[in-house]
Amino acid sequence: MADFAIEKKVYYHDTDSGGVVYYANYLKFMEEARTEFCLSRGVDVAEWFKKGIAFAVVHVEVDYKCPAQYGDTLRVTAAVEKLGNSSVHFYQETLNGDRILVKARTVWACVNKDFNSQSLPPEVRAGLGKEKGSKDA
Amino acid sequence: MADFAIEKKVYYHDTDSGGVVYYANYLKFMEEARTEFCLSRGVDVAEWFKKGIAFAVVHVEVDYKCPAQYGDTLRVTAAVEKLGNSSVHFYQETLNGDRILVKARTVWACVNKDFNSQSLPPEVRAGLGKEKGSKDA
Amino acid sequence: MADFAIEKKVYYHDTDSGGVVYYANYLKFMEEARTEFCLSRGVDVAEWFKKGIAFAVVHVEVDYKCPAQYGDTLRVTAAVEKLGNSSVHFYQETLNGDRILVKARTVWACVNKDFNSQSLPPEVRAGLGKEKGSKDA
Amino acid sequence: MADFAIEKKVYYHDTDSGGVVYYANYLKFMEEARTEFCLSRGVDVAEWFKKGIAFAVVHVEVDYKCPAQYGDTLRVTAAVEKLGNSSVHFYQETLNGDRILVKARTVWACVNKDFNSQSLPPEVRAGLGKEKGSKDA
Repeated sequence: MADFAIEKKVYYHDTDSGGVVYYANYLKFMEEARTEFCLSRGVDVAEWFKKGIAFAVVHVEVDYKCPAQYGDTLRVTAAVEKLGNSSVHFYQETLNGDRILVKARTVWACVNKDFNSQSLPPEVRAGLGKEKGSKDA
Repeated sequence: MADFAIEKKVYYHDTDSGGVVYYANYLKFMEEARTEFCLSRGVDVAEWFKKGIAFAVVHVEVDYKCPAQYGDTLRVTAAVEKLGNSSVHFYQETLNGDRILVKARTVWACVNKDFNSQSLPPEVRAGLGKEKGSKDA
Repeated sequence: MADFAIEKKVYYHDTDSGGVVYYANYLKFMEEARTEFCLSRGVDVAEWFKKGIAFAVVHVEVDYKCPAQYGDTLRVTAAVEKLGNSSVHFYQETLNGDRILVKARTVWACVNKDFNSQSLPPEVRAGLGKEKGSKDA
Repeated sequence: MADFAIEKKVYYHDTDSGGVVYYANYLKFMEEARTEFCLSRGVDVAEWFKKGIAFAVVHVEVDYKCPAQYGDTLRVTAAVEKLGNSSVHFYQETLNGDRILVKARTVWACVNKDFNSQSLPPEVRAGLGKEKGSKDA
């Protein structure tokens, strides 16, 4: 499904003493992939933050299928599933070669500096709505 | 619902430049609360790991309601919702005073060192099943 | 030497796949110990930050003697070695029982929001200077 | 001095609520740079670990000159300053454009799985000793 992916190599700081990537660290990888995906669509989250618009994660749902290890090179995808009035719904996978390790859905709420809900700015809607198969609702 | 909670103070390393606790870091807080909850029930995850039994997170679902900030002292609860044959289902909240900031469900799979599914050891089942209102299924 | 210490239990997120606490994570432990030490002296770093005064780490020097493992309960000390005009010099140890695992020196610069050097506020100097054996220079 | 560098973009998870990269996170960046530097010299730390040889950080010394912010793209260098009998001494800089933000020296001890000192394997010595200007002592 996703056309967009970043490469992410696993270093010691990503792993835990169970010998595999620590479960919370996939959320860091996914933040990076979402940021780069948005940039590829002309949406610079850092710039919007300076203008007082932030994208706060309000929901995340993750299925861990298979662990990753130190030294693995992973691919982390990002795609928009749905655009709400003030939300962006992402679907992301983390893969090792063809094997899906982790599947996740993440919802961003568009908020101002006081964490009050804001409509998605038209430029953000236009940029992120270009995803093939995304539903602009 | 939960009788068990740990206290968790927010330090700089927990926050990000958005000024609030980074979304992945609540998963660290929740790991700590689950670990301490299990210990309070006589289940020492570290000891089981030495015997070749690990509890791997296979699913997590988090709702972020309200942000926490540097210097806040939070409470992180842990309770067992369900015991499967080889799984433990947790429900957890992160609170600031009476306000619920984050709600989460986490599923552990009981696995051996090769990440193959194992039945819950009887001692683990007995310890974690003592939760009031938990369904031992 | 140090009279002040915090207790710090090691969880999975503190370790790496080498089986021990990741070297950078001791710097998180030490941040926590310095913060609590300062609070014990009436210096609330969070409050000063709101007033536009920050304490930025400008130097750190760490000797790693012995590793810590998942499940260990450590003590992390904090003491002031020297107060400069706009700096605070800390000495800290991380111990497991009586064994010193890590020794570190950290220097804070007192800065404003633009990271320009500031004299230590008199209240900070008074609070942190009370350390036995500290040299107020 | 250093011919070797990695690029490292700053994401939210690298920063803290002070608005800048958290001081411990530069140690993660530097781990990544050392790892890639060693790989570029034919020294695969992950492979050595599987053979029972680890490189444990025993000393680190960091000067923080200037902060980095969310969205910055940094370069992190790595060079060998000295090879001891069972140690590797690195010098590393983190730069934003031409500006040096952080300077650091890190010492690795070559150890076995019980953290006992080992002589550097000849292949490691040969690979890392190729650095221009390094002193093989």
